[in-house]
Amino acid sequence: MISKTRIKLIKSLNLKKYRKSYGLFVAEGVVNVSDFLKSGLEPEYFYITDKGLEKFDNKLLPENTAKVSSKDMERITLLKNPSEVLSVFPLPENKNFDIKNINDYVLMLDDIKDPGNLGTIIRTADWFGIDKIICSNETVDAFNPKVVQATMGSLSRVNVFYDDIVNILHDSGNIEVYGAFLDGTDIKEVDKPGKGVIIIGSEAHGISKNVEPFVTKKITIPRFKNSKTGAESLNASVATSIICYEFRR
Amino acid sequence: MISKTRIKLIKSLNLKKYRKSYGLFVAEGVVNVSDFLKSGLEPEYFYITDKGLEKFDNKLLPENTAKVSSKDMERITLLKNPSEVLSVFPLPENKNFDIKNINDYVLMLDDIKDPGNLGTIIRTADWFGIDKIICSNETVDAFNPKVVQATMGSLSRVNVFYDDIVNILHDSGNIEVYGAFLDGTDIKEVDKPGKGVIIIGSEAHGISKNVEPFVTKKITIPRFKNSKTGAESLNASVATSIICYEFRR
Repeated sequence: MISKTRIKLIKSLNLKKYRKSYGLFVAEGVVNVSDFLKSGLEPEYFYITDKGLEKFDNKLLPENTAKVSSKDMERITLLKNPSEVLSVFPLPENKNFDIKNINDYVLMLDDIKDPGNLGTIIRTADWFGIDKIICSNETVDAFNPKVVQATMGSLSRVNVFYDDIVNILHDSGNIEVYGAFLDGTDIKEVDKPGKGVIIIGSEAHGISKNVEPFVTKKITIPRFKNSKTGAESLNASVATSIICYEFRR
Repeated sequence: MISKTRIKLIKSLNLKKYRKSYGLFVAEGVVNVSDFLKSGLEPEYFYITDKGLEKFDNKLLPENTAKVSSKDMERITLLKNPSEVLSVFPLPENKNFDIKNINDYVLMLDDIKDPGNLGTIIRTADWFGIDKIICSNETVDAFNPKVVQATMGSLSRVNVFYDDIVNILHDSGNIEVYGAFLDGTDIKEVDKPGKGVIIIGSEAHGISKNVEPFVTKKITIPRFKNSKTGAESLNASVATSIICYEFRR
């Protein structure tokens, strides 16, 4: 049995303001929870069902493991479908991002609002070895349970920063700043010096007007020339993924 | 005012069995509805709010346009957030897919379950000029309201077929059948003869055991070589998008 106070605490972590005030977030599912444990995070609370125990690497089980029923799991889950393992972890501190000393490509997200998109972007960045993502303060919180779910464990490996991106870009100096637009240079043609900032705009509005002046290279994923087709744009996480692929190709 | 019977009918179209039995589906949002109208579909019912009228191309408005309040729209919407325009269209008939006569790349989806993924795949196919997608019968229905929403109008331009994909593959003859695996040939190295079937497996299980024998070329999106990263896989719609990009590059 999980106490009512505990259930209330966990449920509150669905909201950013409670995650901030308690300094905690929730990860669910075998892959996500295992990956955070492997990264060295120590769980504040850790709940697992019998079924979860069958799938979970026993060597990873923390000291404070609590075995619970599926019914209890239904009471604490923040997802549509309860998982077999749920862990409450301390929220990593938001570190400062130092744009001057980057030595690889980094992603910068200009108000990505959809949790599924952010989660997918973090997962894709991890696949392509991009380990820093700078999010505007208006971007959806990376520790939102739906984002955590969509990252499939990658949030434990990719560093996600939140900041005023215009302030950061003020210090970009000679660093190349790529921005995804519908009318830029073909991504396969553009110079790729091995480091730089790649800005992805929001789902609804693209790159904001106050961010655009910092872009040094506008880039585009070319649409296939075929009169029958007419998609106006690509989904934000798809566009990010294709750009990451091409920059690592 | 919309009658209770009509509201009940529209709400029922959230489920595939009612879409099939009535032969109808629902599209919402200015882009989606406009694109279906442009493609020549004639709406059975068409509802629009005052706000919707401001954004909608008036030349596209059908004869049976019904102006409704936002409150009415809340009563009929199948989405989380009601749109400013909602149209009920006749369901296109499921045509037979002829694998022998393909002259371009086509996508084949082996049990894609997530509506957002299918919608994103249809939207991306449209961008890259791939106008045929063959779905296994177990793939989520393309006329599911969440899929329609995620396609952003592209469902009006891309032909989506449902069939027993194993049966279809039996007739593939000399056609190249690419399958996305974690251990195939790098997508940038593989021969691309200008036509072929590209199979994408399900989110949870990849390409099924009974489909795999038909694959003539296993392909892979290479992961960036970097010990720090560890994503196990890519999201299904992201993988599809990167493959489409590379095959059109």
